[in-house]
Amino acid sequence: MLELELLKEISRSSPSKIVLVVIDGLGGLPDPGTGKTELETARLPNLDALTAGGICGLADPIAPGITPGSGPGHLGLFGYDPVDGNIGRGALEAVGIDVELKAGDVAARGNFCTVDDKGIIADRRAGRISNAKCAELSKLLDGMTIDGVKVLVYPVREHRFVAIFRGEGLADAITDSDPSQTGVAPLDIKALSPRAAKLAGVAGKFVAKAKEVLAKHHPANMVLLRGFARRPHIPSMQEIYKLDPVAIAVYPMYRGLARLVGMKIAQTGTTLEDEFATLKENYGRHDFLFLHIKWTDSAGEDGDFSRKVKVLEEIDAALPLLTGLKPDVLVITGDHSTPAVLKGHSWHPVPVLLCGPYCRPDAVKRFSEPAFLAGGLGRIYSRQIMPLAMANALKLTKFGA
Amino acid sequence: MLELELLKEISRSSPSKIVLVVIDGLGGLPDPGTGKTELETARLPNLDALTAGGICGLADPIAPGITPGSGPGHLGLFGYDPVDGNIGRGALEAVGIDVELKAGDVAARGNFCTVDDKGIIADRRAGRISNAKCAELSKLLDGMTIDGVKVLVYPVREHRFVAIFRGEGLADAITDSDPSQTGVAPLDIKALSPRAAKLAGVAGKFVAKAKEVLAKHHPANMVLLRGFARRPHIPSMQEIYKLDPVAIAVYPMYRGLARLVGMKIAQTGTTLEDEFATLKENYGRHDFLFLHIKWTDSAGEDGDFSRKVKVLEEIDAALPLLTGLKPDVLVITGDHSTPAVLKGHSWHPVPVLLCGPYCRPDAVKRFSEPAFLAGGLGRIYSRQIMPLAMANALKLTKFGA
Repeated sequence: MLELELLKEISRSSPSKIVLVVIDGLGGLPDPGTGKTELETARLPNLDALTAGGICGLADPIAPGITPGSGPGHLGLFGYDPVDGNIGRGALEAVGIDVELKAGDVAARGNFCTVDDKGIIADRRAGRISNAKCAELSKLLDGMTIDGVKVLVYPVREHRFVAIFRGEGLADAITDSDPSQTGVAPLDIKALSPRAAKLAGVAGKFVAKAKEVLAKHHPANMVLLRGFARRPHIPSMQEIYKLDPVAIAVYPMYRGLARLVGMKIAQTGTTLEDEFATLKENYGRHDFLFLHIKWTDSAGEDGDFSRKVKVLEEIDAALPLLTGLKPDVLVITGDHSTPAVLKGHSWHPVPVLLCGPYCRPDAVKRFSEPAFLAGGLGRIYSRQIMPLAMANALKLTKFGA
Repeated sequence: MLELELLKEISRSSPSKIVLVVIDGLGGLPDPGTGKTELETARLPNLDALTAGGICGLADPIAPGITPGSGPGHLGLFGYDPVDGNIGRGALEAVGIDVELKAGDVAARGNFCTVDDKGIIADRRAGRISNAKCAELSKLLDGMTIDGVKVLVYPVREHRFVAIFRGEGLADAITDSDPSQTGVAPLDIKALSPRAAKLAGVAGKFVAKAKEVLAKHHPANMVLLRGFARRPHIPSMQEIYKLDPVAIAVYPMYRGLARLVGMKIAQTGTTLEDEFATLKENYGRHDFLFLHIKWTDSAGEDGDFSRKVKVLEEIDAALPLLTGLKPDVLVITGDHSTPAVLKGHSWHPVPVLLCGPYCRPDAVKRFSEPAFLAGGLGRIYSRQIMPLAMANALKLTKFGA
């Protein structure tokens, strides 16, 4: 597998433009009734036409059989090792609400929970309090300074929040307070290395303080923390690829992931049309544009086969807004498959289509999983897509003389 | 990816013979007018017949998207890691004129250049002096001994030469004197590590001495050195594969690369017919024969689509000279693609065909990039070809009991 160091050495800036369209949860499985996948069922004249002129294949986000979360799924698409560069739970939660993690910060996933008068956990989710309640209680806990460490608390939704510990000398190797079960007391937070003693102490004090502050807010009268993690150390896309990248995404998780690799974030609206309009506005200002489309994944997660088909058809209908810009290289793929029949992410390889004047087109004419089996890209890893896009945009120099 | 240590363990010598034909720059891209690649355009009855009986596929020289130079391209074909084993610029220049680099030697690429009376570089190539002039001036600089280090100077062509520093304790981590631009003075050569101080001193003195010697030879009145590099540490093909290999190549670069991995070099002429005749002469004496054919790459580099087609047809017509020898395993591939439309090396995977009685033939009948997509080898890395050739020649024992 190609090292980022090598890519860094041979990447060069140039005026050519790459557009990466990520259709979340793109790949699917056949509907038992028809024997056809979501893609095979949909009418996709524009995607089919692009396929006829491009080169396609199937990409494994991590490795055959491994189902990725959104974090590793996108890291792979941006050209990083999705396992080495994996983002800890707490950091991913912060990324997911598009909160900036500074170098040295440690983030934890938090739950508001219910404890009884003996301190035993009765409900790990405090009856799933409302988003408004979550915001109100997060505000009560936000902004403490403990032993010189600032603790920032951001609501996520329902019982979920993010706690960020900001200060000098914080190592993240500490245990969870969340026992992941009811009927027991929250666990003491312990350092797993001497260097992490400071954070373990601060986190323990924060939990004790939170218990005091929340005492009268039953059912949300306690907190549980887990997945303490720093921001992963990832070189930026500017550094590796010499690109000036921008991200267009309606959902905060994907803006957060894009920010993590150094992309600028474009303001956009809430619809597919908004996203394509934002792409057009930003087209002149960037040489790499990442467009994230969420609704295919949402439909797949809901097990709604026909809604996923409909979203695919809507994307197809909107595509001329993008192809009209005539990007030098256009890549259309997904971060993972989300087959409606599985109602969740899956391990199945994801269709990937690359269009550009030097792509060496294959004979495939239909945008679907079975058709892409005969594609010229063959079976690749998602992290190999970026080098291919860069090469096709003539942004990579020769390696070795 | 298979490690050389493992291959070394399971390789055994046997009388079976492997012929590896490298058609330089073999893969291409469609001509925009016809939609057909060079291979699809050419009439190749002999290659097609071999394809019908063999197993084929497409090989990435380094990794998807990465365009290799000739050095890494061939290292991969000989079964080595083309990135780990990468050859520094100076060493490759020496290899390229087929000069032997001993262990411990450091080689640099040199330019004769023009400096004005203030020592500022006016022309980095000294007006591209003639090959004869280059030879004459190289002779003036050749053979100095500086601080116990012998400096050997070999002409390459026009303004280019190779300087080889031969002596005890030379580390190659020193900076270039070539600033790669005009309008400035040559740079001082500096050691990048304490161990390299000796070579930095010697190289600096050599440059100063060269300036004196060349003073009256305007426009070639100064030298620029860059890419100081030792011969890479690569185990030989004898050591790994227990082969007795020979190389047949018209161009010195490929003889040099072959020598680097331990091949003997056969004397040959300047034409394709000469090369095939040399192959026949040497056939009885070696169990591995590497035949390099350059002219496909030259035509591709010149952007001459129809000349590349013609060269392919000439190779095809000459093939019976080779197949008549009935090698146990015949591999026909390239070191990289050189599409005429790109006028240079490219990242596209290279067709690879393997013929032998135990190859498990596929259904492909045409020797071309799109046809090979359906080949039985699938998509592999170039460095995986040697183990396949060895296996098909029954030269690899079982791994593990």
